[in-house]
Amino acid sequence: MYVVIMAGGSGTRFWPLSRTKTPKQLMSVFGGKSMLQRTVERVLPLNPKRIMIVTNVEQAAETGRQLAEYRQCPLDIVAEPVGRNTAPAIALAAAIIGHHDPAATMLVLPADHYIRNEAEFCRVATVAAEAAAGGVLITLGIEPTRPETGYGYIETAPATAGSAAQPVKRFVEKPDLVKALEFLEAGNFYWNSGMFIWTVAAIQKELALQMPELAAALGVLEFADDSWQLDTLKPQIEAVYPLLKGESIDYGVMERAAAVNVIPANFGWSDVGSWSALPEVITADDDGNVAVNTDGLIAIDAKDSLVYGNGKLTALIGVEQLIVVDTPDALLVCHNNRAQDVKKVVEKLQQQGLKGYL
Amino acid sequence: MYVVIMAGGSGTRFWPLSRTKTPKQLMSVFGGKSMLQRTVERVLPLNPKRIMIVTNVEQAAETGRQLAEYRQCPLDIVAEPVGRNTAPAIALAAAIIGHHDPAATMLVLPADHYIRNEAEFCRVATVAAEAAAGGVLITLGIEPTRPETGYGYIETAPATAGSAAQPVKRFVEKPDLVKALEFLEAGNFYWNSGMFIWTVAAIQKELALQMPELAAALGVLEFADDSWQLDTLKPQIEAVYPLLKGESIDYGVMERAAAVNVIPANFGWSDVGSWSALPEVITADDDGNVAVNTDGLIAIDAKDSLVYGNGKLTALIGVEQLIVVDTPDALLVCHNNRAQDVKKVVEKLQQQGLKGYL
Repeated sequence: MYVVIMAGGSGTRFWPLSRTKTPKQLMSVFGGKSMLQRTVERVLPLNPKRIMIVTNVEQAAETGRQLAEYRQCPLDIVAEPVGRNTAPAIALAAAIIGHHDPAATMLVLPADHYIRNEAEFCRVATVAAEAAAGGVLITLGIEPTRPETGYGYIETAPATAGSAAQPVKRFVEKPDLVKALEFLEAGNFYWNSGMFIWTVAAIQKELALQMPELAAALGVLEFADDSWQLDTLKPQIEAVYPLLKGESIDYGVMERAAAVNVIPANFGWSDVGSWSALPEVITADDDGNVAVNTDGLIAIDAKDSLVYGNGKLTALIGVEQLIVVDTPDALLVCHNNRAQDVKKVVEKLQQQGLKGYL
Repeated sequence: MYVVIMAGGSGTRFWPLSRTKTPKQLMSVFGGKSMLQRTVERVLPLNPKRIMIVTNVEQAAETGRQLAEYRQCPLDIVAEPVGRNTAPAIALAAAIIGHHDPAATMLVLPADHYIRNEAEFCRVATVAAEAAAGGVLITLGIEPTRPETGYGYIETAPATAGSAAQPVKRFVEKPDLVKALEFLEAGNFYWNSGMFIWTVAAIQKELALQMPELAAALGVLEFADDSWQLDTLKPQIEAVYPLLKGESIDYGVMERAAAVNVIPANFGWSDVGSWSALPEVITADDDGNVAVNTDGLIAIDAKDSLVYGNGKLTALIGVEQLIVVDTPDALLVCHNNRAQDVKKVVEKLQQQGLKGYL
């Protein structure tokens, strides 16, 4: 199995901690290791043949720095010169892996997701890899634990006897609460996790069908030899990438492919989409408060609040549902239900040309 | 006229900006000059003969450092070895000034009050000094502008013809809202400002009557000569001070003295008693937000909030009536109506022995 980690995101919803050069996946969201490092560590028990990180040129140096310590497994870093969403990134990874190992199976993972139960993750990934061996595209479907309106869903048909894989009936956009409750009740709806397993042959066949321009553009890549020296690819990627159309793998392939199966997963997953998701993944104290990277939290009649600190003693008095993020040059105080609006701050900074804060 | 500035407070209500060694009066509450420096600058147009700062031994060095630039007027710093409230501090200042200039008039001011209209302050102080020349004790009474329940009041009788001074009928403790509204309506109630003017002879006579032990204890001080070299006083003060009883000048003298007059004052006064008082004295923007010492404030649906920054860009999203105070080692986020509870944080820090944060 090869693992492809999609690490090119430049999310703005974790500002001021996340910046252009240190986006969420390179951040130590939980203190300690970054989300990318945790993602790499999570797959090591699967003994992958190689791990490929697809990042972008701005983050490549920091990505390499963070991954220098993982020498147990060969690790390739491929840098996109411009972001083109997930389909080109996956197609590029498939092209490179396919050249070196045409019989490869690819596990595709976002670099910035949280998974609580890592052993269960490995078990599910192994089951999914077996299901993918037959040539079907597999996506991991998270069993819903609440009527979440922030995720897309996948509706499935019953699995055939003896298989864990459930055929996809349809992909569903983020629902309203009424629909989300119906989905939760129905039992055959899963959160669309953005984690996939397939053989390189299967995804390349499907790319050729659904996204022929993309497949053709990457088909011209010339490899120096069969070693994993990828240096000669760099100028070719820089030449071809800006010409590609940006597209997600969901829209470009998964929603149109004939045979997509879901492997249900229940390993405590979160896409950690904004600051308000952190209390989902970090255990709060009895008052519902979470303090990361503070030199102590003194809470007086304060509850359900998150402090992401900068090493300081922090005191909260008479506040609820706050997000407080302190960094060396910027400070954010935000109501928990407004976490999506953090990106508006980033937009304002962009408008004002305050690049130092981006 | 001599000016005595009471600068020995160790208030905890401006934590984390105020600390044991830099209490409120030594802080740059408004950015720029400290409150003590502003107090000194405010009296310079009165051309005082000397200015005496009564502080404590812990703050004496920083007090001296902050006042080094004021060379227009001779300036004495007297350090109390222990805090004994205002009566001993005033009695000590009166003893020292009285030795050198028995005919002196003393203007007594707290070091940590805000006054918007400094010219009007000087005008009122001059009127008050004239009224004090006859030997009566004068206190400046602030004309109430709102039914404030956080201040003590002074009820007065009408002034005699041709005089601005109104005789005190009684001192009133902090009232409830109903009483505060009555006081505001009545027109002859004033906020007790803690600012006094009297001749040294008058206050020493009253101290001898009302606080004979204090007067006697300080009566033994021996002066080297008639110069203002106060070095020989230091060991004497250190010997006598710990034996003194702590008492406020209000309770010890003013509330019991036979003849106390009020000079009404209306110069935009605040005792700046807690973080929640800052919006009274710093002009807020259209949303009611005040940002001091930030590198810009981005407010998205945020209002009536105060940010006392540490030089950072600060973003507020979806919050109201917050107090945010950022310092190099501690961060406070407090609801505006809980500003009085900041001292509880300091108490917790004391209990936990976290001296670095005190």
